[in-house]
Amino acid sequence: TAMDPDAVAKAFVDHYYSTFDANRAGLAVLYQDSSMLTFEGQQILGAQNISAKLNALPFQQCQHHISTVDCQPSGPAGGVLVFVSGNLQLAGEQHSLRFSQ
Amino acid sequence: TAMDPDAVAKAFVDHYYSTFDANRAGLAVLYQDSSMLTFEGQQILGAQNISAKLNALPFQQCQHHISTVDCQPSGPAGGVLVFVSGNLQLAGEQHSLRFSQ
Repeated sequence: TAMDPDAVAKAFVDHYYSTFDANRAGLAVLYQDSSMLTFEGQQILGAQNISAKLNALPFQQCQHHISTVDCQPSGPAGGVLVFVSGNLQLAGEQHSLRFSQ
Repeated sequence: TAMDPDAVAKAFVDHYYSTFDANRAGLAVLYQDSSMLTFEGQQILGAQNISAKLNALPFQQCQHHISTVDCQPSGPAGGVLVFVSGNLQLAGEQHSLRFSQ
């Protein structure tokens, strides 16, 4: 039986951001050599470079709070396009930041 | 000579939102029968259904102001994934809405 793509997407999003908040270096295995992250205009190619970028972000402790998860089929190979929005709370900061990915 | 994907993406974004604001029905030709729009959790398939959804949104006059356009290659067929954020000003409303697509 096929898994529900929505459920897969939501489980992935939960896993991605809880890993980001608890063990950021653990995100590396969620990317491939052909993966690309575009971060505020900068294109970063490959799991190793993406992991280095995420680990070098200018904050350490953080907590993502997810507001919305939208997903839809993408491409011929059974891919899923996932759109996430939420708030990012940084340690020691009073106000949280809005983010979307 | 190949066109710069960033330039193509930015030109498309300008065209998309200026059409949205000036002649929303004109967006239909920018979608295909296999296109999908996910709008606040609702999946809408095909140019005709997407156009109907966009034309039925509960506001008429609006103005999109683009803040960021990020893009990267996507898929084997030369596609481009484009991420847009900005503000949406509705006629008669004092405050604008943040949006991302």
